[in-house]
Amino acid sequence: MAAERLVVIGGDAAGMSAASQARRLKGPAELGITVFERGHFTSFSACGIPYWVGGEVGERDDLIARTPEEHRARAIDLRMRTEVTEIDVAGRRVHARDLETGDGAWTPYDKLVVATGARPVRPPLPGIDAPGVHGVQTLDDGQSLIDDLHRTEGGRAVIVGAGYIGVEMAEALLHRGYQVTVLTRGAQPMATLDPDMGRLVHRAMDGLGITTVTGAEVTGIRTDADGRVRAVVTDAAEYPADVVVLGIGVEPQTALAGAAGLPLGAYGGLLTDLSMRVRGHDNIWAGGDCVEVLDLVAGRMRHIALGTHANKQGQVIGSNVGGGYGTFPGVVGTAVSKVCDLEIARTGLREKDARAAGLQFVTATIESTNSAGYYPGAALMTVKMLAERRSGKLLGVQIVGREGAAKRVDIAAVALTAGMTVEQMVSLDLGYAPPFSPVWDPVLVAARKTVAAVRKAGL
Amino acid sequence: MAAERLVVIGGDAAGMSAASQARRLKGPAELGITVFERGHFTSFSACGIPYWVGGEVGERDDLIARTPEEHRARAIDLRMRTEVTEIDVAGRRVHARDLETGDGAWTPYDKLVVATGARPVRPPLPGIDAPGVHGVQTLDDGQSLIDDLHRTEGGRAVIVGAGYIGVEMAEALLHRGYQVTVLTRGAQPMATLDPDMGRLVHRAMDGLGITTVTGAEVTGIRTDADGRVRAVVTDAAEYPADVVVLGIGVEPQTALAGAAGLPLGAYGGLLTDLSMRVRGHDNIWAGGDCVEVLDLVAGRMRHIALGTHANKQGQVIGSNVGGGYGTFPGVVGTAVSKVCDLEIARTGLREKDARAAGLQFVTATIESTNSAGYYPGAALMTVKMLAERRSGKLLGVQIVGREGAAKRVDIAAVALTAGMTVEQMVSLDLGYAPPFSPVWDPVLVAARKTVAAVRKAGL
Repeated sequence: MAAERLVVIGGDAAGMSAASQARRLKGPAELGITVFERGHFTSFSACGIPYWVGGEVGERDDLIARTPEEHRARAIDLRMRTEVTEIDVAGRRVHARDLETGDGAWTPYDKLVVATGARPVRPPLPGIDAPGVHGVQTLDDGQSLIDDLHRTEGGRAVIVGAGYIGVEMAEALLHRGYQVTVLTRGAQPMATLDPDMGRLVHRAMDGLGITTVTGAEVTGIRTDADGRVRAVVTDAAEYPADVVVLGIGVEPQTALAGAAGLPLGAYGGLLTDLSMRVRGHDNIWAGGDCVEVLDLVAGRMRHIALGTHANKQGQVIGSNVGGGYGTFPGVVGTAVSKVCDLEIARTGLREKDARAAGLQFVTATIESTNSAGYYPGAALMTVKMLAERRSGKLLGVQIVGREGAAKRVDIAAVALTAGMTVEQMVSLDLGYAPPFSPVWDPVLVAARKTVAAVRKAGL
Repeated sequence: MAAERLVVIGGDAAGMSAASQARRLKGPAELGITVFERGHFTSFSACGIPYWVGGEVGERDDLIARTPEEHRARAIDLRMRTEVTEIDVAGRRVHARDLETGDGAWTPYDKLVVATGARPVRPPLPGIDAPGVHGVQTLDDGQSLIDDLHRTEGGRAVIVGAGYIGVEMAEALLHRGYQVTVLTRGAQPMATLDPDMGRLVHRAMDGLGITTVTGAEVTGIRTDADGRVRAVVTDAAEYPADVVVLGIGVEPQTALAGAAGLPLGAYGGLLTDLSMRVRGHDNIWAGGDCVEVLDLVAGRMRHIALGTHANKQGQVIGSNVGGGYGTFPGVVGTAVSKVCDLEIARTGLREKDARAAGLQFVTATIESTNSAGYYPGAALMTVKMLAERRSGKLLGVQIVGREGAAKRVDIAAVALTAGMTVEQMVSLDLGYAPPFSPVWDPVLVAARKTVAAVRKAGL
């Protein structure tokens, strides 16, 4: 019997996790695996780029979990710099073009994995493609930014967008000695938090010497005589810039899948079932930044580009295409980040998410410390909690604080997954010792106050 | 109508939490509250004593959450240095003696709270009461030890017991410049971990310059001509000591309750129902280090002396005696500790606990890092996980590592409470960003490997 043919489009986290896991389950005699990757690298950590740019991570290659050669050594036929230009679903084949030679050819498949990732949103503004304006999605993006920093050292950096990438890049460029301005359309930075929590981030960024401009609608990029970026222009002002970083978010890269008739959701991401199989297609799977995921708390699909989901989904796909079994049940929306020593975390629903989901809710916000108040270095953290009215079911948690703040959100992530009420959370047996927590962990203090809010709201 | 009379025996975490919460719910016209405390202090953090001794916490009073005066200001009739010597259950009264004047008197109650705490185990060995041999349960103990350290500065310290108190005191005395030897009866330090994980603690303590002697059965304390401690003697050797700290554990202080006929369990702790009411007694509650608690994983009672439980139980008691409602459903056995920069955590069952509970199980142990491997300062941590054979239900987790290791145990504590399987845990949406976690959190890596072990063990 001839080997089954698996084709994977995209050689980053999801695609290579899928290929590797499938290879673990089936040898080359049973399963042939071909991966097409458009870029120069495989299995790299896009999330690590800010730390490479900031100088904390020394080398580009530190961000590469596995090289093409390592993948090939595991009997994966990896075609680098090769772009898939068409999926012929009916004919079960993909057309791929070698970006160096320009040669194209069809490759047949029995099973297909689509892992084409996401790309940074780049609004069609005048000057947006000028030299000096950078995205930070790929290692090539990162390298080009770093090269540019060598030319503009210690100058003025403007970051467009104040989400995770924006604040992480603000930290990176601060480390590099830049004068950093962050422009955001929102009322506060970190729109993944409620504005009252975003305000805490804003204040901390002020304290770090980062200028944050809220309510700023970018209308264009002003360039100099050589066509290089000179300033970022908003509806209200102009911000001189030697270098500009775009951190406005990313969108699923699904033009290829869409053209092939594969189902896309409201955010443009591929729609899959729980086994990560593309809906309506028995032999096509998709995972990583190009898919939409089920938000288990809101009960709806979302697009969340995050390496940890991509890796898990790739693993699930690899198990299923390799004859094993796995599912990706969905997410609760956990995210952590930091800007210098400020830690930021969230999981579940913000107020506006809860409203959009048709949920009535109460909130409580508390301030406590990461360790016992008397322990040296005890630092304040603020925890905001949302619970459903009446049922008291936990809906979301947001945390802003210093060391030891962010990963506490995991407590809430597990509680959300388990469908716990805030009342149940109050009794949680969490780790306590003075260096690690006050006698009531801040998450428990928030749960107690939220219980009171649920009671007060009544039936 | 005359006010109802609440009497509380013991003015530390559980007792004062109960009194304070009851006062929040009912004013003095409705509820009279009298608290008898034998010692000099209220509401202090016994868990903080090692850090006070070690010099990280500057002042004794830093460890006091609320002074007698502060409690009295909330209309609590607090009788310090007054020991309850008898509970007359039938007559609904307690007999208390003023330790300064020796005067005794009966006080009637409508509702009684027993919060008499625990005391360090002090085996009846020759010399055990010699000057220079210290417990570390009360602030007076801590003060007496610190006074002694001023006299023996930089000398040799021997710590008997290598549990939480033992290793924390080892750190404290190391900070004080002592040559520290820890003696333990067990095969490894930290018997609250399985021996394979205890070995990692042992190795780290070696690295810190702490001498750990395992399998050491202490037979006596040798004293000098003045009767002061000179050495600790074991069945095999003699360890010169200028100061000795006992960290062998604690036992419930329930002689008073036992004499009154209140029900005690196998560990000598008071037995209560879920509302913390003493079994068989409608108007008596008990909480804190003097009670046994339900281990939700093993399905049996245990004695666990921990400030966080005492505070929660006190809160529950206060709600119930104040006309509100609360329960303490039990514990999963979470504990965290550190010795210098080594973090140690556990929750749920060890191998021997699982066996004793009649459970068949598999284990998996993994090594990973607290942050992305490429992030500066990424430090190794070891995670061991136990799951039930067949069902794959999580049974326990043990973690030994550096910064960011210990509090990860909370993920498992919540999962245990929710009755999750290790398979469910693999999909948990935990916080990921390079400074906080590898793309697969170490707990998820352990869960993955445990899933494989469950499958391999079959049905």
